[in-house]
Amino acid sequence: MRGDTKLLIFIGDGMGGRPIAELDSQTTIEAANTPAMDRVAREGSCGMLDPIAPGRPAGSDTAHMAILGYEPEKYYRGRGPFEAKGVGIEVRPGDVAFRCNFATVEGKMVVDRRAGRIKSGTVELADAIREEIPKIGDVQIIFEPSVEHRAALVLRGPGLSHEISEVDPHEPDVDYFESHALEGAEDVAGANKTARVINEFVKRANEVLQDHPVSKQRRAQGLPPANIVLPRGAGTAVHLEDFEQRYGVHGAMIVEVDLVRGVGEYLNMDVIHVDGATGGQDTDELAIARAIVEAFETHDFVLANIKCPDLGGHDGDCQTKIDAIEKVDRAIGHLLENLDWDCTTIMVTADHCTPCSLMDHSGDSVPIAFFGNGTRPDDVDVYGERACSKGIMGNLRGMEVMNVMLNFAGRAEKFGA
Amino acid sequence: MRGDTKLLIFIGDGMGGRPIAELDSQTTIEAANTPAMDRVAREGSCGMLDPIAPGRPAGSDTAHMAILGYEPEKYYRGRGPFEAKGVGIEVRPGDVAFRCNFATVEGKMVVDRRAGRIKSGTVELADAIREEIPKIGDVQIIFEPSVEHRAALVLRGPGLSHEISEVDPHEPDVDYFESHALEGAEDVAGANKTARVINEFVKRANEVLQDHPVSKQRRAQGLPPANIVLPRGAGTAVHLEDFEQRYGVHGAMIVEVDLVRGVGEYLNMDVIHVDGATGGQDTDELAIARAIVEAFETHDFVLANIKCPDLGGHDGDCQTKIDAIEKVDRAIGHLLENLDWDCTTIMVTADHCTPCSLMDHSGDSVPIAFFGNGTRPDDVDVYGERACSKGIMGNLRGMEVMNVMLNFAGRAEKFGA
Repeated sequence: MRGDTKLLIFIGDGMGGRPIAELDSQTTIEAANTPAMDRVAREGSCGMLDPIAPGRPAGSDTAHMAILGYEPEKYYRGRGPFEAKGVGIEVRPGDVAFRCNFATVEGKMVVDRRAGRIKSGTVELADAIREEIPKIGDVQIIFEPSVEHRAALVLRGPGLSHEISEVDPHEPDVDYFESHALEGAEDVAGANKTARVINEFVKRANEVLQDHPVSKQRRAQGLPPANIVLPRGAGTAVHLEDFEQRYGVHGAMIVEVDLVRGVGEYLNMDVIHVDGATGGQDTDELAIARAIVEAFETHDFVLANIKCPDLGGHDGDCQTKIDAIEKVDRAIGHLLENLDWDCTTIMVTADHCTPCSLMDHSGDSVPIAFFGNGTRPDDVDVYGERACSKGIMGNLRGMEVMNVMLNFAGRAEKFGA
Repeated sequence: MRGDTKLLIFIGDGMGGRPIAELDSQTTIEAANTPAMDRVAREGSCGMLDPIAPGRPAGSDTAHMAILGYEPEKYYRGRGPFEAKGVGIEVRPGDVAFRCNFATVEGKMVVDRRAGRIKSGTVELADAIREEIPKIGDVQIIFEPSVEHRAALVLRGPGLSHEISEVDPHEPDVDYFESHALEGAEDVAGANKTARVINEFVKRANEVLQDHPVSKQRRAQGLPPANIVLPRGAGTAVHLEDFEQRYGVHGAMIVEVDLVRGVGEYLNMDVIHVDGATGGQDTDELAIARAIVEAFETHDFVLANIKCPDLGGHDGDCQTKIDAIEKVDRAIGHLLENLDWDCTTIMVTADHCTPCSLMDHSGDSVPIAFFGNGTRPDDVDVYGERACSKGIMGNLRGMEVMNVMLNFAGRAEKFGA
């Protein structure tokens, strides 16, 4: 079996939760109708997962890093590099990367953080920025637009640091901020330099965009002009070993979120686009499932993430979250029918809880279940927080699960004699 | 909710145990009538706690350090600094501190390690010591009496170390020891110097106390004179970050034991005195509970410890321990009635097991239950060792529980995006 077994990590983004009084004190997973995940739990090995550590709320980026075995406490230096990778910028160790919004300012006051969720014209605006601001001092400026108002910025040059304060005020009708070195920054000189470059970039981007034809046209249409770029989420790029080099499996990612896609790009995994995978409640979960089946024709490993459960959690909308979890379940149902479970192991989990009651990530553990090749059934018979906590796997950490998967798949090396 | 949620850690000292044949193979917690703790378990999130690590018997000091998130493996250098803080001595990094007994010697032979549990006169004896022995060489002598025969000693000066052997023989009718550097001491020169100072201190204290009026009076009354001071539990003071600085919550401690109080003082928490809290079987548990409710008017965080379950364990007296556990339960019952559980999270646990069969601390895990704001009910319906081991929290370590508490209370920072 060894060498031709397949591994699948299937993540329902933010799928874990807390009991909800109106759902008879069930979580949304417990309340949802999930025959496929229940079969995974019933015939597989269950437990609970703390993506980072008990009680520590994880981001999607840090959770996926940990689940893939790259220790976030050691390697995470902000989301920027993943965002930049996710929009297709090549990021090199030492670069400092940012996600950005095109926004609308009057003077220094931010009147719309998303420039009216601008739909078109950002390619032209980005071209103008690249042409007019190729460098600031000895720092190269790399800038790419993404979907709607989103973009990414990479600074490349000597002596940069991500330890700088935000420019984006994260609320409208206040002035944007001057960036400065964070208190307690390890590399104060690098942070001072990076803050200077960012402040200069923001000012000059404003000058470039203010009277750009796209801006003039939007004003004429009564739309807020995208007349500034607000960078945030600074992150220093570090070297991470390629996924395939580390594990000896050829890996693909089928995910819907730029940030997670960026983690895959960063690890040099194949990131597979799926038509119909929207990242929203309307995503085509069966198209995603079919893409996974197809990916296994050319890959040993797939990490899949369906985003929509997280959205219902952030919106505090239990029914939407339940519907989303049932979408995840239908995708897994398709996989149960269409993969060869004698040589495939699946792990079904979430990257974190997004309880509807909290409308944000929490640090609660999430259910995890392993099914297929090599797994050991326990007495758990449904997939959910309470049920899986009684499973044979106990409480796992994100950093442990790749070893567990490789073991079930018969791909783990013996340590010792 | 964030920012105005309250956190309560409630510790029944040494409350955990092992099954006892005469109790139908129940532990004392399982045998006790504990409606309040049972409700905490039934409506909350349960698990097991290893204060240090599986199988490692914890002291009250190391367990409380770990539960508060200060890694004992890294920062614990003996109990002395906590004892000294607990009796009100200011301890500075680099000091070496000791707990001491006033004792009775004839020549070098210890005839009573507690000088007949001397009740009065130790203030005058301590004054004499301070006056006669202000320094030994370049080392300042700081000495304070505590309750009954107890006292604390701090050595302050250059090049000291706690790595010295005991003076106190811990049994009567043998000579006390000369202290010397411990074999394998990291700082041999410092340990040699500290041992010399301690030996000199013990000798001179004996000279000062031998014919002190208090000693003469006790001899006249047929009582053993407190004619020597026996230091033990040497500990080097290290810098520990203030609790409030670390967690951003204003913390209080309501505890009965000097040693644990000393941990609170050391972390610069407010240590609240409660009339009627005796540390014994006769303690007023409702006074303690009322003090906790009151403390939350001005604090975000309280750690409470009721001592008496540990006493029954050390005495090997199951019924006394059961009675003590029921006292703990009554205090928690008062809290369930009188705190606002929509914005308060409680954690109920023990700092270690003190099994009656062992009459000492053991390294067995203890039950832990979280109740109130943010917690997730599981299927556990009573508080106890066997029941809680089936809970959703799995097996936690002391070092993890502050993160778990902060998460439930909505006060944890997200790590990642």
